[in-house]
Amino acid sequence: MTEYFSSRRSCRSFTGAEVPESLISSLIREAANAPTTGNMQLYSVVVTRDPARKDALAGAHFRQPATGAPVLLTFCADLRRFSRWCGLSDAEPCYDNLQGLTTALLDTVIFAQQFNTIAEMHGLGCCYLGTTTYSAAQISEMLHLPRLVLPVVTIAVGWPAALSEDPGRLPADCLIHTEEYHDPSDEEIRRAYAEKEAREDSRRFVEENGKQTLAQVFTDVRYTRPMMEGTSGPLKKLIEDAGFHI
Amino acid sequence: MTEYFSSRRSCRSFTGAEVPESLISSLIREAANAPTTGNMQLYSVVVTRDPARKDALAGAHFRQPATGAPVLLTFCADLRRFSRWCGLSDAEPCYDNLQGLTTALLDTVIFAQQFNTIAEMHGLGCCYLGTTTYSAAQISEMLHLPRLVLPVVTIAVGWPAALSEDPGRLPADCLIHTEEYHDPSDEEIRRAYAEKEAREDSRRFVEENGKQTLAQVFTDVRYTRPMMEGTSGPLKKLIEDAGFHI
Repeated sequence: MTEYFSSRRSCRSFTGAEVPESLISSLIREAANAPTTGNMQLYSVVVTRDPARKDALAGAHFRQPATGAPVLLTFCADLRRFSRWCGLSDAEPCYDNLQGLTTALLDTVIFAQQFNTIAEMHGLGCCYLGTTTYSAAQISEMLHLPRLVLPVVTIAVGWPAALSEDPGRLPADCLIHTEEYHDPSDEEIRRAYAEKEAREDSRRFVEENGKQTLAQVFTDVRYTRPMMEGTSGPLKKLIEDAGFHI
Repeated sequence: MTEYFSSRRSCRSFTGAEVPESLISSLIREAANAPTTGNMQLYSVVVTRDPARKDALAGAHFRQPATGAPVLLTFCADLRRFSRWCGLSDAEPCYDNLQGLTTALLDTVIFAQQFNTIAEMHGLGCCYLGTTTYSAAQISEMLHLPRLVLPVVTIAVGWPAALSEDPGRLPADCLIHTEEYHDPSDEEIRRAYAEKEAREDSRRFVEENGKQTLAQVFTDVRYTRPMMEGTSGPLKKLIEDAGFHI
């Protein structure tokens, strides 16, 4: 098994070195050989290098450190190209609904993750910006996304100055369910998160944020109710404005 | 660059050889090192090997050939484990909304695609079953998925008897947009799909289905309006029944 997969880390700190356009294109071409529903390839990627545009995007991404990368790639669910091809081919497209959107979302994330793997195996540093859907309307406007195109995830790409520390993962056995879903007992849940809670960095997060538990750092600081609920409405509105009936 | 990425193919035909449980677990453990939002790992995977259960799932997947694989892995968006941990930790979870669901979807697909890559690089044959969301309610019931857990994608896994042919992909330049989205002209759209339309297998699909254009094979045969619109309502209902307010 390739050593890479168990040792890979995200990258949030980049050298100033440029990433050639031809390299990005070639990695994207390889990534497009990833699985895609019915070979439809319902995605596009917008490449941002221009400093002013990158700075504007960084704002939409809450100025996360990784936005300092030389290249930001915004992976978009794209039902427009396919639907327009149908329209030009005496075929009536029927993908502006929840199932069409879901299919394009899956295609887009599979493609983005394939890019992430290929780029990291090539020695580049990558970091997903999960903030893409939190600021989706703003990003959509900045990138001039038309009807039936939606921003889904962003990957910051550059040459790594340093990789992130091992963040630790849950024990695999709590992720795996045999034959049917096993709803864990409270004790099993506690055991699943025990190692994560005991980590030095977790204890520091709790203390620095004046919280009692690690979970409170998530609910009260990192992924709060105002943030999750406050961005759900605008995200839904953007999806509808983009022409999807969900 | 690793040769694998440009030559990989999906697999729909498997030998009878078993895939050891320990191998699947070890591949899942490696895949869980893929990027995940805030290290939350908002996913679970249900492993189906039992012949009767596999047969029932195959029905939900419209008896696609790949369902003959020895193992079916249903990757699920799982906000339940994380939310229950919050509840056990004096923290109030706030993830039963569109943003929470979207975050879990991204996590799940990134994880599934990482599994797919690792398994294929290990010599296994894999095939995504995109039909998971079309039959989501049925699959959810079969796998006993509880509140805040939703089936997203399925990967059929086994040792390959044969790999699929190269299906051909769109020219990469129509996927890549520089600085902002470039809305293609009709001519550019036609050019993007010209090679695909000219393929021998595409011409055969058109003829065998009694259609005039390749796009009509998609809209009238493979991904039709009754199928896309008819499954969108049940998918939305399942999402709401699972406790998400979208």
